[in-house]
Amino acid sequence: MTRREFIEKSGNSYLAMAALGFLPEAPAKPFHLPRNEKPNGKKIVILGAGLAGMSAAYELGKLGYDCTLLEARDRTGGRIWTVRKGTSETEIGGEKQVCQFDEGYYLNAGAARIPHHHHLTVQYCRELKVPVEIFGNLNEAGYYFSESTRGALANKRVRAREVHADMRGYLTELVAKAVDQKALDLPMSAEDVERYVAWLREEGDLDLNKKYKGSERHGYATPAAAGLQAGKIAEPYALKDIVESGLTHPAFANVGEYTFNQQPILLQPVGGMDMIPRAFTKLLGDKIRLSCEILEIRKTQPGVRIVYLDKKTGQKQEMKGDYCICTLPLPMLKGIASDLSGEVQRAADFVPYMETCKIGIQFKRRFWEEDDGIFGGISKTNMDITQIFYPVHGMLGPKGVLKGMYNFHGTAKKVGALSLAERQKLALEQGARIHPQYAQEFENAFSLAWHKIPYSKGGWGVYSDSARQRLYPVMTRNDDEIYFAGEHASNLPAWMAGAFESARYAVDMLHKRVSAG
Amino acid sequence: MTRREFIEKSGNSYLAMAALGFLPEAPAKPFHLPRNEKPNGKKIVILGAGLAGMSAAYELGKLGYDCTLLEARDRTGGRIWTVRKGTSETEIGGEKQVCQFDEGYYLNAGAARIPHHHHLTVQYCRELKVPVEIFGNLNEAGYYFSESTRGALANKRVRAREVHADMRGYLTELVAKAVDQKALDLPMSAEDVERYVAWLREEGDLDLNKKYKGSERHGYATPAAAGLQAGKIAEPYALKDIVESGLTHPAFANVGEYTFNQQPILLQPVGGMDMIPRAFTKLLGDKIRLSCEILEIRKTQPGVRIVYLDKKTGQKQEMKGDYCICTLPLPMLKGIASDLSGEVQRAADFVPYMETCKIGIQFKRRFWEEDDGIFGGISKTNMDITQIFYPVHGMLGPKGVLKGMYNFHGTAKKVGALSLAERQKLALEQGARIHPQYAQEFENAFSLAWHKIPYSKGGWGVYSDSARQRLYPVMTRNDDEIYFAGEHASNLPAWMAGAFESARYAVDMLHKRVSAG
Repeated sequence: MTRREFIEKSGNSYLAMAALGFLPEAPAKPFHLPRNEKPNGKKIVILGAGLAGMSAAYELGKLGYDCTLLEARDRTGGRIWTVRKGTSETEIGGEKQVCQFDEGYYLNAGAARIPHHHHLTVQYCRELKVPVEIFGNLNEAGYYFSESTRGALANKRVRAREVHADMRGYLTELVAKAVDQKALDLPMSAEDVERYVAWLREEGDLDLNKKYKGSERHGYATPAAAGLQAGKIAEPYALKDIVESGLTHPAFANVGEYTFNQQPILLQPVGGMDMIPRAFTKLLGDKIRLSCEILEIRKTQPGVRIVYLDKKTGQKQEMKGDYCICTLPLPMLKGIASDLSGEVQRAADFVPYMETCKIGIQFKRRFWEEDDGIFGGISKTNMDITQIFYPVHGMLGPKGVLKGMYNFHGTAKKVGALSLAERQKLALEQGARIHPQYAQEFENAFSLAWHKIPYSKGGWGVYSDSARQRLYPVMTRNDDEIYFAGEHASNLPAWMAGAFESARYAVDMLHKRVSAG
Repeated sequence: MTRREFIEKSGNSYLAMAALGFLPEAPAKPFHLPRNEKPNGKKIVILGAGLAGMSAAYELGKLGYDCTLLEARDRTGGRIWTVRKGTSETEIGGEKQVCQFDEGYYLNAGAARIPHHHHLTVQYCRELKVPVEIFGNLNEAGYYFSESTRGALANKRVRAREVHADMRGYLTELVAKAVDQKALDLPMSAEDVERYVAWLREEGDLDLNKKYKGSERHGYATPAAAGLQAGKIAEPYALKDIVESGLTHPAFANVGEYTFNQQPILLQPVGGMDMIPRAFTKLLGDKIRLSCEILEIRKTQPGVRIVYLDKKTGQKQEMKGDYCICTLPLPMLKGIASDLSGEVQRAADFVPYMETCKIGIQFKRRFWEEDDGIFGGISKTNMDITQIFYPVHGMLGPKGVLKGMYNFHGTAKKVGALSLAERQKLALEQGARIHPQYAQEFENAFSLAWHKIPYSKGGWGVYSDSARQRLYPVMTRNDDEIYFAGEHASNLPAWMAGAFESARYAVDMLHKRVSAG
């Protein structure tokens, strides 16, 4: 039987292809454990109603478990948080902030993009009927702005396309020249060397003499149009100027968009990232108890006892369960009295979390679209704001909310320490160096420093190689009747996929144990 | 006054910035001619209700002209054509075809993408309130399939990301090595050479020894997940194998996505490209007369007389006007009796038009998403189908229509000469080499060869450099009272922007003449 006959005869082309070893990836399918929605008598207390907790409860529910989720906030979703009109938040030690965006505009304050190969995240969108659209991560129209004491391109905005086209041009020219001088020992036949040189010319847009003299890929000084306006290609930048001005710094290199998790195409839910937690919330209904802050995690051998503060009544309560799935971020776990093992407590103490700030800024008009032709994507700078993200939602509309800052580590620590007014001032001043329209078009803003957000205290777990070796493994095992899930309990930290993968992993372990009796 | 103060004080930040010379591009704004919607007594006959004709009528209407559009088809839009359930077409010398797609699915048979810097096209979407979304042109998950008699990667699908990451890795390794050997005379300081080498390492993902040993950018053999599954990066391909297998051929090189007109981000109207002509059609109402095939274009010195066949009644009719804007594709103009000047007739005779074929294929499920994680973007091959485009509309839904072929020149001529059944067979067989699911999931298809489509007879005008010099200029001038518009009358052939720019150009010329008396 040929491969094709086999596939045609099979009832399911995916399984047939998998059987033939054809698929390079195992795409996520609805969960594979045997279904049994009848009660199985086991009670699971889940700490945290973020994606890990809710997806665990959803899968456990399918298997007949009795789950309750205790969530400290008055909303679900955790770091999957979409800030809209009326959203209010008070950072630790901070002032109360209420979002003033117009109806229909939003800021994805936490997770903002879904890599196309995060099959499980995509599968949950499919299964829960959350519509998705393309998140425009890579935009050649985005600006680079290098603040620098030297260089002809310093302290001015240039387009990503300009730097990319010119760097590729000079790079391929260098190699083509070396090939001509027979300076390279290329591991291929003479015919293939010719092919490679042809590729170099295409890759860099080199001229007939294999020189880079500029390219339409850099962009036009005068665009092509009607009449006799044929278009005039802009002069390329000198390699020396690009390097001297700091534009080869990793802040600007295409590295971000090249990495596996950020390669085109990325997705986002239509209407805000919180459409995913909202869909889980709807399915889980009264299994979720909001405003319940965890105070103690106790082992009852067997079983667990969770002590929590019901913030609505101000009463201390407790809940017993056969098992617990703990999805609390490690900085939160650190402060909770518990019977957790020493090695778990050590992980909670020593895994650092990312400092990171964002600000959503509403403008009176979408000048980045109207004046600059930027529809989604990112501008990059070595100033404190680090990045500006342009929104995909509401394109061509009257107003817009862009993400005016996304920074990390020490920069975020510094910016996060500012007052709300000072942060806004910083974002507006630095942003105005790229978009002078900022000053005139500004309406309002909402900023946050994740390391100061109650019940998160950080962006995501940051494992050094050694922490991954020494501290992480404990997150993948049960501590008696307690299991762990969340992005920090996965090899995909910071990503929603890490929350989902770890939740399935914990559910799988727990269910195997219960099933084995 | 500082720049910022100037902008803040100005009533309009765009104009203020333009006055300061800050803007590198002149974005399109609503048309700039003085408005006068009162009748001005001049009658314009417009030949063709495609984008050029309709946008000309729309702008002329604002200026008070009395326009009538004569359109041979029973629909507007010309080559802006979205094929849906019930769409029927009979190619020249061909069989009648009726589209069987399910409700809600479509194929953009003609224009399919809007570059973000085609400001005028975007401006019409804004002005006519046509919602847009991102068109995913570049997708690193797309496949390359090189049919070849040699090479370890020939005749199998590989991911775009794999080839891109490995080619960049080997390229930067070659240059880094040459820098180390001081074989390059880089025009920069020693400090900047260090920066450049750091950039090479980032750009290619080179190791500490500046060797390319593979990269996560190529993708994973085993993905990172929860538990102790840290992820295993796939082995890179050998440079020799990539070149020998034909994967550096321009059919696969990133050239397409690098070119100015195809750089991320591109846009498309939500719901089909014909949302643009539909919006114009609604505004123009009964100014458009469908099923009127042009037979003669006569000069009445002054003025014009157009003879046409009213296909609804079978009657020959004529219409007089003060001026005419002719947007007919040149292959159509060639066959029409006229008083056009010799140089116009020569352009019509000698500007070749692109042969190009497409096929829309409806499948029972979106296996490219479900099995392969492909959401939009393109797969490329050197087989006759040339490209496969994956739809952005209906993502995560039950079924899907992909574009199973997009080819050009001789290949399109060959495929276009096949019967509909043979074309479909070819698209399914070649497509199945990339997606074996084709055979089992196929439902129905609709194909077209633009060079055989009545009233178009080609994809777009193809100007050689010499034709651009010799033949094109006549399209930019009036021939007595006759003006020309359409993509072929612009320096942006094949693009909707060419139709719009040329229409504005013609309207501008015509209105200046009338205004001058």
